[in-house]
Amino acid sequence: MAVFYVFTKQINASMKIKIQIVALLSVVGVAIISGCQQHPKSEVSKPEAKVITDPLPSWNEGASKQAIIDFVTKTTTEGSVDFIPVADRIACFDNDGTLWDEKPLPFQLYFVIDQVKAIAPKHPEWKTKQPFKGILEGDLKTALAGGDKALLDILMATHTDVTTEEFDKTVKEWMKTATHPQTGKHFNEMVYQPMLELLDYLRENGYKPFIVSGGGIDFMRAWAEEAYGIPPYQVIGSSVNMKYDTTLKPPALVKLAELNFNDDKLGKPVGIQQHIGKRPVFTGGNSDGDYAMMQYTSTGTGPRFGMFVHHTDSVREYRYDREPGLARLNKGLDDAQKYNWVIVDMKTDWKKVYKFDK
Amino acid sequence: MAVFYVFTKQINASMKIKIQIVALLSVVGVAIISGCQQHPKSEVSKPEAKVITDPLPSWNEGASKQAIIDFVTKTTTEGSVDFIPVADRIACFDNDGTLWDEKPLPFQLYFVIDQVKAIAPKHPEWKTKQPFKGILEGDLKTALAGGDKALLDILMATHTDVTTEEFDKTVKEWMKTATHPQTGKHFNEMVYQPMLELLDYLRENGYKPFIVSGGGIDFMRAWAEEAYGIPPYQVIGSSVNMKYDTTLKPPALVKLAELNFNDDKLGKPVGIQQHIGKRPVFTGGNSDGDYAMMQYTSTGTGPRFGMFVHHTDSVREYRYDREPGLARLNKGLDDAQKYNWVIVDMKTDWKKVYKFDK
Repeated sequence: MAVFYVFTKQINASMKIKIQIVALLSVVGVAIISGCQQHPKSEVSKPEAKVITDPLPSWNEGASKQAIIDFVTKTTTEGSVDFIPVADRIACFDNDGTLWDEKPLPFQLYFVIDQVKAIAPKHPEWKTKQPFKGILEGDLKTALAGGDKALLDILMATHTDVTTEEFDKTVKEWMKTATHPQTGKHFNEMVYQPMLELLDYLRENGYKPFIVSGGGIDFMRAWAEEAYGIPPYQVIGSSVNMKYDTTLKPPALVKLAELNFNDDKLGKPVGIQQHIGKRPVFTGGNSDGDYAMMQYTSTGTGPRFGMFVHHTDSVREYRYDREPGLARLNKGLDDAQKYNWVIVDMKTDWKKVYKFDK
Repeated sequence: MAVFYVFTKQINASMKIKIQIVALLSVVGVAIISGCQQHPKSEVSKPEAKVITDPLPSWNEGASKQAIIDFVTKTTTEGSVDFIPVADRIACFDNDGTLWDEKPLPFQLYFVIDQVKAIAPKHPEWKTKQPFKGILEGDLKTALAGGDKALLDILMATHTDVTTEEFDKTVKEWMKTATHPQTGKHFNEMVYQPMLELLDYLRENGYKPFIVSGGGIDFMRAWAEEAYGIPPYQVIGSSVNMKYDTTLKPPALVKLAELNFNDDKLGKPVGIQQHIGKRPVFTGGNSDGDYAMMQYTSTGTGPRFGMFVHHTDSVREYRYDREPGLARLNKGLDDAQKYNWVIVDMKTDWKKVYKFDK
């Protein structure tokens, strides 16, 4: 299923109608191997004396935490040469791997798989038709053998020909019941506690956080407000076209089987402009898919903050960076010094990983 | 020039690449006649004892004002059956003719005309090439004879092949110097005082106002925050595609000569979903171009408020509604009762029209 994800990420935003078929077999292999990783139980951290005034209690003292606090302090201190007016305190965050886990597969893919199973009774033909047959039989390898066409079929079968309000309800219901294959937790519990604290800290200081993700915009909106306190109008993501259908009662928006926008890589700065209308001053990501928006942020005039969440903790979470495949962080590490990006080391910088960690 | 405006409004959102040529000559005629109307000086209203607690001091007492206050009161009173949580208090407003004047021509057209003149020295070929020649010589009729192709040429020449940040700067500078041909006021002074009060009143009650306009999204963002207190990320409008260009220093977004989205008519509910992600509960418009978003709002579950600003005041502003042409309000008036829409009568409901009125 990982291929599907990569596929949607690689569609150029301008290819709105014609979907180009690209070869992704090497990535399939990597994703499947990645999918076999064992997810460890969370490390139980020792109880510590909590400093009331610490805005980032789940962050260990160190360069990363200090850099965040220094930036927020200097940009919000009236009279500072680095002062940023509230109107310009725009912060953008990738979602998968930055605000919540994305392993062994990006979580939206579990939704896709579950949806294929849920609506299969309405599609008896799927029993013998790939890629649905493979998914229904738990044989992803065969399902994916159909390449991009197969992946597009799965996406469109589960994300379109439905009103936006029905889709929202479906995602919300799924989120209440579905659980992660390794932790057994609900997916919206697998958000990173240090990042929740960072979002709160930024908001308390007049920053407005937006999600800027390659994930589906309507998928994220269904749960992001509860999980992160980020309302639907501050969520930017990939989307399909829609039609306002006045034959429905009440008239509603129907999601169509046409890609509208792919919010990844060079698309991220475009999505930021479409939705926000100004260059951000603070950006967080975790992979080279975020490189362009990090660069767009950090090359603006005045104080700028860019950070990569570096997945270094194979015990409490997962360890991945430069190896080719999903969520690769390679160019970002190479250019971190050039752009003064902060590399947040999950293993050493974070006391807790998930919200549910003790 | 009015044709251009209508043209961009009539392009279906799905026609992203292929621009269909439509006949608009009858509208040209209407717009030119409309352009010949005399704009009266503002009526000087009598000083009145101002009630401190009146949230809408520029609104005369009456059914419209009472309907607004009743709606806001009941939807923000805890325990009321009509209570709306803050997260759902989404208000959408058309811009041209709803928040500011749009006569004799939509104001963005004056920007287009001025821009053609401003950049003409870089284009000596325009002296002999329509539609530019006509604009430069003040002969709009000839300029418009080229139909949609001519209009598209003007739009693309003035709104694209420029970075979003350069464009923003250009609009801001233009707004400081350009003035309305009849009032002599800057365009951003020609905002409706009663609507400014309504925006404030809604915000004070936890509502979040968005602009949802057929106008250019980046054009509006350049001045909407100062004029209305509406930040760029709460502005939804028509847009062109963009490219993140890393060859520029710094890397920046370049506006391309390709239509991305036409935020008018059936497009308005789509734009609302793309940007906001939920059905609004309060919507204001002034023409049938707003019908779909008004209907989308008013057919949702729970309390809803829809209002049309009805241009009834030929003395202080302009009088127009059912006649064919720009900003026609016909179907909206027909269906007002069906959807319980409030028809705001500018002549009788508003004490003041413009912000600068005494």
